[in-house]
Amino acid sequence: MAVVIDIDDPADPRVADFRDLNSADRRPDLPGGKGLVVAEGVVVVQRMLASRFTPFALFGVGRRHEALAGDLAGLAVPYYRATAEVMAEVVGFHLNRGVLAVARRPAELVADEVLDGARTVAVLEGVNDHENIGSLFRNAAGLGADAILFGDRCADPLYRRAVRVSMGHVLRVPFARLPGWPDGLETVRAKGFQVIALTPDAAAANLATAMTGDRVALLLGAEGPGLTEEAMRAADVRARIPMSPGTDSLNVATAAAMAFYERVRIS
Amino acid sequence: MAVVIDIDDPADPRVADFRDLNSADRRPDLPGGKGLVVAEGVVVVQRMLASRFTPFALFGVGRRHEALAGDLAGLAVPYYRATAEVMAEVVGFHLNRGVLAVARRPAELVADEVLDGARTVAVLEGVNDHENIGSLFRNAAGLGADAILFGDRCADPLYRRAVRVSMGHVLRVPFARLPGWPDGLETVRAKGFQVIALTPDAAAANLATAMTGDRVALLLGAEGPGLTEEAMRAADVRARIPMSPGTDSLNVATAAAMAFYERVRIS
Repeated sequence: MAVVIDIDDPADPRVADFRDLNSADRRPDLPGGKGLVVAEGVVVVQRMLASRFTPFALFGVGRRHEALAGDLAGLAVPYYRATAEVMAEVVGFHLNRGVLAVARRPAELVADEVLDGARTVAVLEGVNDHENIGSLFRNAAGLGADAILFGDRCADPLYRRAVRVSMGHVLRVPFARLPGWPDGLETVRAKGFQVIALTPDAAAANLATAMTGDRVALLLGAEGPGLTEEAMRAADVRARIPMSPGTDSLNVATAAAMAFYERVRIS
Repeated sequence: MAVVIDIDDPADPRVADFRDLNSADRRPDLPGGKGLVVAEGVVVVQRMLASRFTPFALFGVGRRHEALAGDLAGLAVPYYRATAEVMAEVVGFHLNRGVLAVARRPAELVADEVLDGARTVAVLEGVNDHENIGSLFRNAAGLGADAILFGDRCADPLYRRAVRVSMGHVLRVPFARLPGWPDGLETVRAKGFQVIALTPDAAAANLATAMTGDRVALLLGAEGPGLTEEAMRAADVRARIPMSPGTDSLNVATAAAMAFYERVRIS
């Protein structure tokens, strides 16, 4: 059972890691200067508890402690209990979700290991928007994609907003950084993945027919610029989602969802 | 050619319709109390100009007027030209996109007419989030869905945020309100549409195999509560997107995108 500690004073140093949540992603005092991993709300905290991101402290109202009692059984972490008002003063705004958990960043997974058991993965290049990254993980989890690989110039998936938008699935869907770009794609291909570059280019093959591999790696670039030519060249095939003329490319997380869906549509 | 009128004073009454954009969606002085239709940025303004929402005024910096010169040729509307600073004072914040256009709300389209030429439509129930509505229109436009029908308790698609998130596609993809709910679905069925209720229910048929109609209406509820039982009963078939166990339902705009994709994947 988590140890309940009541916090009455917003200045209490024991809740320092929950302070001023809007700037919690920058922590010059921590290795790498990046923030702790923050889970918000009962569902996301539950997903954190079931993940490799073991929280070292929770902070929430009494009612949320009751909701989490079963999940916290057998766990020796402090649950700092406060009123919604005290919480608001600590985190800097009123937090509807009523409970937070924080974890240290564990060692990153290695691409090689993440790829081993996988059948469907996404590989990202230049996806630098935290909300898109979060949505991508949510869609990957929902549609059974096995992992996300990061190539060049991507946003941090453990950023607070990415964790929130993903509904905690960044904590569950394995991810890793590819060693080198685009050379790192060789690691993927060497495992037998068909590397498919998604592009709005009308000259590209149709996604539904181009996707023939038993193991598939979907290469996705940022909305707007798309994939670089060097990333395209490193793919086995270029594929497009059939789009109407005169429209914009789809949001990158939506495009990914369609490719993940193509893998599982008959099941 | 639009008539260029320079605005130096942020208090100038000629730009009153562009004032305080953050609360522009409530206009007690207009019929129905709803705001004007606002387009932001060159691309969305271009889409407005090509739509049935004819703008009666534009407000922007000089550079954006040049970018739009071709689109504005032959149009007798004022282009209120100002510096970015004056614009910021009028609209209430710094507007990166640099140009706005405003249109009055035209008469709503009639469901019957909207359905006439359509092959793929979405019918929404309880989708009350403007961002989701906007994304839905963007996905409909991108993936060739022909129209959106509104059932019960949906958000206003002409709300400023919905227009922006849709990238202007709410101005182009036809939409209409169904007369009565869920009885209005009879109008849809009478036109020969197969009415498919999308649900995460594992007992439902697989979307890819259930979607057999030549004309298809996809019934979508809000993320979380989903469709009401009475809406479900009014459908011809209940269908699910294959989802991984232990995950959340997909975002409603993403689920719609997958259903739209299923209609066009081989093309």
